Amino acid sequence: MHFKILKKSNKNKARTGQISTLHGIINTPVFMPVGTQATVKTIAPCELKEIGVEIVLANTYYLLLRPGDRLIRQAGGLQRFMSWNRPVLTDSGGYQVFSLSDARKIKEEGVKFRSHIDGKSCFLSPEIAIQVQNNLGADIIMAFDECSPYPCEYNEAKLSMERTLRWAKRCKDQFNREANSFLNPECSLFGIIQGGVYQDLREISARETINITFDGYALGGLSVGEPKNLMYEVLNSTLPLLPEKKPRYLMGIGTPEDLWDCVELGIDMFDCVMPTKNARNGQLFTSLGKVNIKNAQYKNDFSPPDPECQCYTCSNFTKAYLSHLFRAGEILALRLNTLHNLSFMVKLMAKIRKAIEEDNFQQARKEFLKKYQQVTFNA
Amino acid sequence: MHFKILKKSNKNKARTGQISTLHGIINTPVFMPVGTQATVKTIAPCELKEIGVEIVLANTYYLLLRPGDRLIRQAGGLQRFMSWNRPVLTDSGGYQVFSLSDARKIKEEGVKFRSHIDGKSCFLSPEIAIQVQNNLGADIIMAFDECSPYPCEYNEAKLSMERTLRWAKRCKDQFNREANSFLNPECSLFGIIQGGVYQDLREISARETINITFDGYALGGLSVGEPKNLMYEVLNSTLPLLPEKKPRYLMGIGTPEDLWDCVELGIDMFDCVMPTKNARNGQLFTSLGKVNIKNAQYKNDFSPPDPECQCYTCSNFTKAYLSHLFRAGEILALRLNTLHNLSFMVKLMAKIRKAIEEDNFQQARKEFLKKYQQVTFNA
Repeated sequence: MHFKILKKSNKNKARTGQISTLHGIINTPVFMPVGTQATVKTIAPCELKEIGVEIVLANTYYLLLRPGDRLIRQAGGLQRFMSWNRPVLTDSGGYQVFSLSDARKIKEEGVKFRSHIDGKSCFLSPEIAIQVQNNLGADIIMAFDECSPYPCEYNEAKLSMERTLRWAKRCKDQFNREANSFLNPECSLFGIIQGGVYQDLREISARETINITFDGYALGGLSVGEPKNLMYEVLNSTLPLLPEKKPRYLMGIGTPEDLWDCVELGIDMFDCVMPTKNARNGQLFTSLGKVNIKNAQYKNDFSPPDPECQCYTCSNFTKAYLSHLFRAGEILALRLNTLHNLSFMVKLMAKIRKAIEEDNFQQARKEFLKKYQQVTFNA
Repeated sequence: MHFKILKKSNKNKARTGQISTLHGIINTPVFMPVGTQATVKTIAPCELKEIGVEIVLANTYYLLLRPGDRLIRQAGGLQRFMSWNRPVLTDSGGYQVFSLSDARKIKEEGVKFRSHIDGKSCFLSPEIAIQVQNNLGADIIMAFDECSPYPCEYNEAKLSMERTLRWAKRCKDQFNREANSFLNPECSLFGIIQGGVYQDLREISARETINITFDGYALGGLSVGEPKNLMYEVLNSTLPLLPEKKPRYLMGIGTPEDLWDCVELGIDMFDCVMPTKNARNGQLFTSLGKVNIKNAQYKNDFSPPDPECQCYTCSNFTKAYLSHLFRAGEILALRLNTLHNLSFMVKLMAKIRKAIEEDNFQQARKEFLKKYQQVTFNA
């Protein structure tokens, strides 16, 4: 993996760049759609390509449980398995072990847990998380971390952050040990900074994670329920500590507003289930704000979901049709909504990159938000 | 609508032809995918086009209840509403009124019933069925009929067939009255022959329906539970009574084997939910027989679903991946299965047409069945 910064804003910390991987280039700042179980829900890979998605995120926890990382390695890796020939980032499974599994027992060695699918007893450790991600053939592998919830007592957050540091070192060691058997010979490893909302813990975590040396640095444990201002306090204090020449990834963020704000602070990579999950609940992101297709007003609205969008959904269908499909429980509703929301996010990131390149970030954000925030009351 | 016979087999009753409509040509014999609620479940219209679907069937009963025929007329008709610019056939709603609705009361005037969606009291009559289908903008409109169940006493089947005849006349009259207000100026009207499994009733129904004069003739009330041999007895005795120059439509059929056999007897049009419904249950139709993707043997089968198929599913994905998606409850599983099954049906019909054109129907059927029936035990 190689990261090249193309343009730095001279008014803020925003920058554009390119991450080069075995499976192609990722233009940053980038939004990564979530493909939890080796598919972005409802969407085919040809559609992801068509709307310009350059990287998808897949999920170690889910794929380890089903169909298993060995089967995916046998298939030739995630790209071959899911017929997606562009880059893939895999998360380490840490977040899911803590949020989804039953009866988990955290020890220094790793985490014992029960599969949420069949109750089977499973074990995930830093070493196993790296092995699994190697088998998945990811372009970007994430270190196995322990994600503090919110709220979380200082001492608890501290213990968790310190364990994450020790695990990070073990991940790095395991990554080096596996180098000879990489399914994806150009895969890279990112470290994850934890510490809850406590700035001193975040600082320790950042410094020590950087000391281990990773190919990129992620901020984990944010957007887990804390007030927005606390998240921005953490970002403001932690981001300046990160090396400029490596990609910075903010996990689990965010809304269109957040994307502008976090890019401004120097974030290069984002992922979030919101555009896909909300689509399946009938919420569309449009240039004129959020549209909840379940609202009665759209039943006989023969205009496209987003008048400024040229995606397949907006070019071919009306709100009235999407409203009908959703009410009728048709799967095509979920598909068309998801396709549009992902297209919206891809175009939003392109808009943000252009604004950085043309040095008119503030103006571009203002223009975007002026339209976007006008009809949010419908959503 | 215009129907042109292109080639008649000199060994059996099979023929190829073309139905010309405002929205394009339909090559017959044709299989029509079912798009009940103005969408072929899970599939986008661009995909239907890509696999070569030339006509879809939509459902008067469902669309009348939701979103309503007036809304669809306001949208410019079904084609505009669902963004499908090829022909549409609408059934009359008769079959659904009898099979789906609660508390129905059949009178000479029409049928009072309760919506299966919200329990609202509704009414459908020959006149209303034609009005609704006119509003939907269908290329081919079906007469409103009463479909006898199986088993059904002779007298009951007789009363029902006779009422269907009187309703057919009223449909024709209403169709003529509406001619000035057709949303689709080139729409045509098909009559439906009923009479259960009683050959004398079928004969009366055929002769009298033909007397009213329709643009095409459908056989209804078959494949409703009767033994296969009874269906073929009805087809054998009724089909010779139908005028050669008009399209013949066998409603609700069928399996690949049935398609060969019924084309041989002179059928031009088919519809059936089986390829789409079975796809959503994990059953794939392939050149090597039926494949039930839920079977454990496919978990690590890295071959395509159908080695002879070039559809998007077969070109890009393995049985192992489809098995994973299905087990993981992913919507993409339903999409990819459906896409393949429809592609299989379209190609099967093309194969059948080619066999008629090249006068080697028996040989082509034998070759198809030899492969197709070899591994059916897996399904």
